[in-house]
Amino acid sequence: MTGNALVLAIKSGGHNWSPARWKQRFSTACHNRKVVVLPDETCPPDEVSYAAVWKPAPGILGTFPNLRVIFNLGAGVDALMADPTLPRVPVVRVVVDDLTARMTEYVVLHVLLHHRRQLQLLKDQRDRLWQPQHQWAAGALTVGIMGLGNLGRDAAQVLKRLGFRIAGWGATPKSIDGITCFAGSDGLGPFLRKTNILVCLLPLTSDTRHILNRSLFAQLDRTSPLGAPVLINAGRGGLQVEADVLSCLEDGTLGAATLDVFETEPLPAQSPLWSAPNLVITPHNAADTDPDAISAYIAAQIDRFEAGEPLQNLVDVTRGY
Amino acid sequence: MTGNALVLAIKSGGHNWSPARWKQRFSTACHNRKVVVLPDETCPPDEVSYAAVWKPAPGILGTFPNLRVIFNLGAGVDALMADPTLPRVPVVRVVVDDLTARMTEYVVLHVLLHHRRQLQLLKDQRDRLWQPQHQWAAGALTVGIMGLGNLGRDAAQVLKRLGFRIAGWGATPKSIDGITCFAGSDGLGPFLRKTNILVCLLPLTSDTRHILNRSLFAQLDRTSPLGAPVLINAGRGGLQVEADVLSCLEDGTLGAATLDVFETEPLPAQSPLWSAPNLVITPHNAADTDPDAISAYIAAQIDRFEAGEPLQNLVDVTRGY
Repeated sequence: MTGNALVLAIKSGGHNWSPARWKQRFSTACHNRKVVVLPDETCPPDEVSYAAVWKPAPGILGTFPNLRVIFNLGAGVDALMADPTLPRVPVVRVVVDDLTARMTEYVVLHVLLHHRRQLQLLKDQRDRLWQPQHQWAAGALTVGIMGLGNLGRDAAQVLKRLGFRIAGWGATPKSIDGITCFAGSDGLGPFLRKTNILVCLLPLTSDTRHILNRSLFAQLDRTSPLGAPVLINAGRGGLQVEADVLSCLEDGTLGAATLDVFETEPLPAQSPLWSAPNLVITPHNAADTDPDAISAYIAAQIDRFEAGEPLQNLVDVTRGY
Repeated sequence: MTGNALVLAIKSGGHNWSPARWKQRFSTACHNRKVVVLPDETCPPDEVSYAAVWKPAPGILGTFPNLRVIFNLGAGVDALMADPTLPRVPVVRVVVDDLTARMTEYVVLHVLLHHRRQLQLLKDQRDRLWQPQHQWAAGALTVGIMGLGNLGRDAAQVLKRLGFRIAGWGATPKSIDGITCFAGSDGLGPFLRKTNILVCLLPLTSDTRHILNRSLFAQLDRTSPLGAPVLINAGRGGLQVEADVLSCLEDGTLGAATLDVFETEPLPAQSPLWSAPNLVITPHNAADTDPDAISAYIAAQIDRFEAGEPLQNLVDVTRGY
């Protein structure tokens, strides 16, 4: 179908990045459509109507004059928004239930791990110590979720089912059943003063960069049975000031933390974070997306678009997420 | 209120056992009722109508001729059933939402911990290795739950919400929405052949003692992305053959396990289980019960009983649970 090709531009190096496999998936999902993988393959630029991308080389999307829609192959669009030459066409974020479910697994695992003091129990086991401690109920803690999009709302539902009190914070006011919601800079302080376990799922924008810093951590509640509060960041590394996370773990401003994302990834072997006290590090694997589900989602969005229906999950380019 | 006393007989040594605090709680909950703590205090035996007990000294309950109801201060009644002199009066099991919620926390934490290969990730962190691996979806695994009482059903609901396939097995046939149920000795093989993560919440009876053995582990499914299956036992230590758990972890019949309960507790410091491969040990703290909730539950049951209403959560003494 000449003049209607899909290009794939994906930053290489990911552990499940195989150009041939992606091309095959998209060729199957978008049957009868020409699929071209950049930069390995080439295509007359005016034939390209759609792009499916993950952290594409800056400037590359501006070379296609007839581009109609950009599909971002994940939840976070910060890398894309940083390209000043990005064509002014709709940008669609991939929202697949599979990605949401994986993030909820991750958040629930790490909230429970800290709530149930599993790091201490693993240490006791290495020391062959049988030391049962008083365990508080989930209802004694408030999990505060920064970012109330699809991911934050889904994790909140499961955590609430487990008995935790839930608070939420986002840039714009929201009303969600069972969650005490706060918004904007005025709402941040009251949100933090209620929160014992802080879960960050914010998008990275100029407003949120380095929002996870000492001044924020110092406002978290310390009066629950957990004592010092816990940080879980599964959003973006740029949200956190890593020197502050480290020093706050060392001086007890934070009692423990889990980080899935870092300012530099892979986290360099010499980083002091690897051995920071009570810190769990995971290699940006909170929510791997299922390539088959992504390909099917994008094919369905293109079908909707060509049938004259509105695109779903559009990125608001002015807000940057 | 003479002739209507409540005795408390609790095996001492638990980490939250304080006779004075238990007496105070019950005195508050059962206002106007005499509360006597055994063996520290005494009471004319014929004055005793109710007993609230946890692993009481065998024979002690048989000394009260007017005993009307025995309340067991936890979910498992195996210690009580082992007393041949137990008076033939109703035995009520404590079922408080708090205990159920804590067990569900524990089961969900340990299922996710093994599903998400967190033990390997913690090891990678100690080695300063950034090694993302392929992560399968929850729907690729079946969690098989042995024991479909209150605890098993509640954990199943949350695990299902997280996306796992759920199978269940119990002594008697049950039909539960969203769970593929198996029953009895005929159903055990088909249940095991579907199961990737086995969660045991069975009561300990003569039928279930040592049910978790090599022959059972060898029937579990090995064809999921998880590979070798996982065992989680939060029931009773007597359900497992510990030498089999150890050798099956060593030879790969089991890929990993979590044990909260042991044949001898505390687990002796010289036990080889402490350092078995991919085994997480917790000190029988899966579901500590909230003493205030227990006291209130028993007071409410006594009020029901004296108002002529039926007791709830009666133990079937002939089945032993």
